[in-house]
Amino acid sequence: MNDEAIDVEAMFDAARAVQAKAHAPYSRFPVGAAVLTDRGNIYAGCNVENASYPLGSCAEASAISAMVAAGEYRIVAVLTVCEGEQLSTCCGGCRQRIREFAALDTPVYAAGPEGVRAAFTMEQLLPASFGPEHLVGFGGHRS
Amino acid sequence: MNDEAIDVEAMFDAARAVQAKAHAPYSRFPVGAAVLTDRGNIYAGCNVENASYPLGSCAEASAISAMVAAGEYRIVAVLTVCEGEQLSTCCGGCRQRIREFAALDTPVYAAGPEGVRAAFTMEQLLPASFGPEHLVGFGGHRS
Amino acid sequence: MNDEAIDVEAMFDAARAVQAKAHAPYSRFPVGAAVLTDRGNIYAGCNVENASYPLGSCAEASAISAMVAAGEYRIVAVLTVCEGEQLSTCCGGCRQRIREFAALDTPVYAAGPEGVRAAFTMEQLLPASFGPEHLVGFGGHRS
Amino acid sequence: MNDEAIDVEAMFDAARAVQAKAHAPYSRFPVGAAVLTDRGNIYAGCNVENASYPLGSCAEASAISAMVAAGEYRIVAVLTVCEGEQLSTCCGGCRQRIREFAALDTPVYAAGPEGVRAAFTMEQLLPASFGPEHLVGFGGHRS
Repeated sequence: MNDEAIDVEAMFDAARAVQAKAHAPYSRFPVGAAVLTDRGNIYAGCNVENASYPLGSCAEASAISAMVAAGEYRIVAVLTVCEGEQLSTCCGGCRQRIREFAALDTPVYAAGPEGVRAAFTMEQLLPASFGPEHLVGFGGHRS
Repeated sequence: MNDEAIDVEAMFDAARAVQAKAHAPYSRFPVGAAVLTDRGNIYAGCNVENASYPLGSCAEASAISAMVAAGEYRIVAVLTVCEGEQLSTCCGGCRQRIREFAALDTPVYAAGPEGVRAAFTMEQLLPASFGPEHLVGFGGHRS
Repeated sequence: MNDEAIDVEAMFDAARAVQAKAHAPYSRFPVGAAVLTDRGNIYAGCNVENASYPLGSCAEASAISAMVAAGEYRIVAVLTVCEGEQLSTCCGGCRQRIREFAALDTPVYAAGPEGVRAAFTMEQLLPASFGPEHLVGFGGHRS
Repeated sequence: MNDEAIDVEAMFDAARAVQAKAHAPYSRFPVGAAVLTDRGNIYAGCNVENASYPLGSCAEASAISAMVAAGEYRIVAVLTVCEGEQLSTCCGGCRQRIREFAALDTPVYAAGPEGVRAAFTMEQLLPASFGPEHLVGFGGHRS
């Protein structure tokens, strides 16, 4: 899928709508995320924090969970939206989560409340990455 | 909501259906989860594993993410379904994740492929628990 | 190891000392933990928070990491120390982390700044638990 | 600290020694990590897996926990060692964990059993990163 085929506005709208549902009483930093799949569907998710902070879920993780629950496994574009003046991109953990289901050239859009501020590819955000292929032959992965 | 009002069969069906979508190439242990909310809606999720194991999502986390994305925050029942002969319940991490949105007497059903094998309350599964109220007054939580 | 053989005071001192080192700028809730092994050694750890909250480490996880790095794998007692008036116990995630290396009757002490407030066994804190044995036969675990 | 001042061999030895202690019965992919601090100390850690995969700790997280427990908070170099023919680098989650305590130009060495295979800077591994400064002003961070 080339970039022109990606309806970034629809992704932004989906991410922005779900951002408003975030459970973020600890960071007070609500995040929304949308993933577009190879079948043309958009799945959205927001951050779900927990009193035990490490047990929270990032917005991207929530969006990916929605995608997998629907039986889809190929991400062709990602968009996140955060508050604040600064450019906020996916944390490293989410770059890895996306990597599991995306390609090197998958675009990742970083948006603020007013719209997209920057675009990256997965390879730009997570270069020289670790992935499923590193585990092949070690016993924990045989698919 | 009392136990009679809970449609456990509908929860089982939702969890069982989503279990089949799990991305579990590393553990080969697919799990499905369903949460029922105070508005009577069921949200389901499955485990989403990652080549970097700690970055995976448990089924319960996925179901909770779906619930929060829909703007709901009160869990009145939980059901999980796993394979295997043994009784499998929520891991400790998920007990804590559920705890964020549930009450002490919230029922948690543990099912196998054939149906529910056991029922617990949240208080039974996570007694003397840590929660949001422990953070009040320390600066990271002011809601 | 019976309870009399456990030097709870030494565990408390170790946990209390490391608690002061916690990196907790987000929750402002520093925690210290100590694990005692079957060889009689105590390993301590504190929480290490991260701007991306889910990537933080709980104190118990840090203590367990220190233990494993030293080539030890059997926990015979755990002690945590937190601030605040309320009794704070291990979060569910840490109950599961301890469970990997402990027995059902392993004691877990919950302390405040002034000393131990309550004692539990692992079975009390994480009843009907999920564990390594549930994965046997599914392909992700063959030890 | 310039690159010449970094004793990469000592870091490799520390990481390689602790790799042998890893608790990795699920992935069978043991990892060792070493962090060098601005005080010239090396802290090492290995991966600690859990039957509930998301509750495991990566090697880098373990090394950072050891550093923080010792009251140190500035990383000036990182080295990881893995098995396998392929170049394995830190997962995205660990890039974010290192980022909390490192600078853009902090070197990160990726080693195999025979020695260092590649070197990166933090900025190369986690460009356009999210970090503590993004949370300032939102309420969850006031340091």
